[in-house]
Amino acid sequence: MISTFTRHWEIAWRGGQTKSTSRVVAEETAIALTYNGSTHAVMMGTPGDLEDFGIGFSLTEAIVERADEIRSIELIPNERGVEVRMWLDGGRATSLAARRRAISGPVGCGLCGIESLEQARRAPPKVEGRGVAFHARDLLGAMQALSPLQMLNQQTRSVHAAAFWHPRTGIGPVREDVGRHNALDKLAGAIVREARPARDGAILLTSRVSVEMVQKAAMIGAPLIVAVSAPTALAIQTAEEAGITLLAIARDDGYGVFTHPRRVVLPEGAALRAGY
Amino acid sequence: MISTFTRHWEIAWRGGQTKSTSRVVAEETAIALTYNGSTHAVMMGTPGDLEDFGIGFSLTEAIVERADEIRSIELIPNERGVEVRMWLDGGRATSLAARRRAISGPVGCGLCGIESLEQARRAPPKVEGRGVAFHARDLLGAMQALSPLQMLNQQTRSVHAAAFWHPRTGIGPVREDVGRHNALDKLAGAIVREARPARDGAILLTSRVSVEMVQKAAMIGAPLIVAVSAPTALAIQTAEEAGITLLAIARDDGYGVFTHPRRVVLPEGAALRAGY
Repeated sequence: MISTFTRHWEIAWRGGQTKSTSRVVAEETAIALTYNGSTHAVMMGTPGDLEDFGIGFSLTEAIVERADEIRSIELIPNERGVEVRMWLDGGRATSLAARRRAISGPVGCGLCGIESLEQARRAPPKVEGRGVAFHARDLLGAMQALSPLQMLNQQTRSVHAAAFWHPRTGIGPVREDVGRHNALDKLAGAIVREARPARDGAILLTSRVSVEMVQKAAMIGAPLIVAVSAPTALAIQTAEEAGITLLAIARDDGYGVFTHPRRVVLPEGAALRAGY
Repeated sequence: MISTFTRHWEIAWRGGQTKSTSRVVAEETAIALTYNGSTHAVMMGTPGDLEDFGIGFSLTEAIVERADEIRSIELIPNERGVEVRMWLDGGRATSLAARRRAISGPVGCGLCGIESLEQARRAPPKVEGRGVAFHARDLLGAMQALSPLQMLNQQTRSVHAAAFWHPRTGIGPVREDVGRHNALDKLAGAIVREARPARDGAILLTSRVSVEMVQKAAMIGAPLIVAVSAPTALAIQTAEEAGITLLAIARDDGYGVFTHPRRVVLPEGAALRAGY
């Protein structure tokens, strides 16, 4: 187990006073995701829940369709960081290699700008959960209940959380990382490993909503996102296309609904309708 | 000019009241950085100040050593995003191609985990500015003066800023992006294009300080960083190694000093010393 936080000296200059003190800060390390001996990506992140991260990243980035296509997963720490070493089933390994050859020209990535941009803007899958609805107050309560469950953030005040929430079982799992997309990938892995019903639940985020957060939520299959901060225009458009209900700028007094409001039931019992 | 924000409908549910309204949200787009016809990276970011971004990214990622090695830079928008199309000098183009071939195996990236982790954890250059010192109150004032200069954030409340501050000229340039590292890359480009004396100034950040923010600041050559949010342990270690003074968790009443405190002069005139 690699520690996710450490203590560092600090000279605090506050209110005109100087104090020599110390502070708990979050660890950050290079994490290499390798498949069958080749590195697919190196991410900077929090070195905790890395099996969840490996499995979740593989699913949300469409390396595999199902977690059981990952034959083995092993964490190999070294002085430079951690390798999350995964071996894929024969068929899946062959198709990953073919996909890499297809996008690999003579000099590294090799794609021209237009080809690369087409690759980057992948269409998200449509989420199911047509009949699922959530009570507006329950979602507000879930966001308020999340803060004490952010164990690493309680210590460091500098990491994001992604959590699953289900009307019957409440909040859990909760995952944390210095990178918001890593936190969501860890959650994706944890949801699968704990066999949570993603299609009937919501994803809670303490961060802003950029497009990759919506793409990953769509890969997880969750029909609703609630986030503390604001969404980008492209995140809203992508949630619209993926059929995801996007709630954001969640504060103690409420939140804004940006897409597919039919899944949000007001205290009076009427689902919200879009303004136009 | 591509717009950096747009207006989207919102159903606001706040304080038990439902209101059909609208909100200004930040645009986010895929940005492909290409050199001599090949894509080096595709980043999601705010589509403003993209010449600054292309030049800054090229410098902080050590694609070039000097901006004038970029022979031309052109923005090519298409329906998938924007290509920042750069052409490098002959010699630099050859060395970039060689560097790519060296790290490129038969299947895409192809590096094993350990090789990839070594690549990721590049040592930052040592900054100069040994004799430079900043008054503690000036830096506090600079952070307080930054907020009204964040033009896009004033509209959207969802983008980060990176700014340059100099004791004689004050704040400027200021650059914004939905991604904190993109904001800093844009600033890097703007500093070079406006011929600002990076070695005698500070970099102001509205974000948390992860390791790549310190690496990029070191490439810019700035001796001091002030950030609103907390640093990671690796960011602190990297600032220590690079000789950068790292101030963070900047609030109205002060901030914490985490590395090289000798450059911070207290109101009483004494520079800070490390606690231990």
